[in-house]
Amino acid sequence: MVPETIDLQAKFAAFDGQWQPKIIAELNDYHLKLAKIKGDFIWHSHPETDELFLVVEGEMTIQFRDGATPLTRGQLCVVPRGIEHRPTAEHECHILLIEPAGTTNTGEAGGERTAPGDAWI
Amino acid sequence: MVPETIDLQAKFAAFDGQWQPKIIAELNDYHLKLAKIKGDFIWHSHPETDELFLVVEGEMTIQFRDGATPLTRGQLCVVPRGIEHRPTAEHECHILLIEPAGTTNTGEAGGERTAPGDAWI
Repeated sequence: MVPETIDLQAKFAAFDGQWQPKIIAELNDYHLKLAKIKGDFIWHSHPETDELFLVVEGEMTIQFRDGATPLTRGQLCVVPRGIEHRPTAEHECHILLIEPAGTTNTGEAGGERTAPGDAWI
Repeated sequence: MVPETIDLQAKFAAFDGQWQPKIIAELNDYHLKLAKIKGDFIWHSHPETDELFLVVEGEMTIQFRDGATPLTRGQLCVVPRGIEHRPTAEHECHILLIEPAGTTNTGEAGGERTAPGDAWI
């Protein structure tokens, strides 16, 4: 069986909802996820893992306790494990996330904004 | 210290040479690499790991023994571990690779087209 072509735009077009990451590919024990984000997320950290954000469309900012990293289309940032961060976007922004399978969006903080960590699209 | 913004276009502009992957970011024990490719690479496989190809600019095809996966800008493919493949591109294509640190471009095949696996840019 030949590995499939995975098209980012087609995947983004296939779901609505913000702050609800969708898995699109598996690489060993890592997942690639797409998310649509708008507004302010919660402060949280991932004690066990780094987390990669790549902006596919739009603009976002990752806030840290001691500063902020702005990201626009074609730019990425690796948030180190254990570092508190808060993703924000003024307008809807489309992002690609890379992190170990099972990583939850709210990290150690948990709470009502925790999304299912196993939703494929 | 605030994590840096990594700009894919700026990184691509900072190196020449084809089939010479450059590391741009580290995510736990994984590396994100950029490469410029043109022409046919060699047949090889990575017995220990899956490998992810994402096309940032241009078009490429990943040939397999039983078919081929075409990729254009914004499309990705995960090559499963142990599966023989040969990346090809008619015109220069810019790609993002994700794989464990230490993965070599020629996999088990080795040979003269093996590039340094630790070149950052």
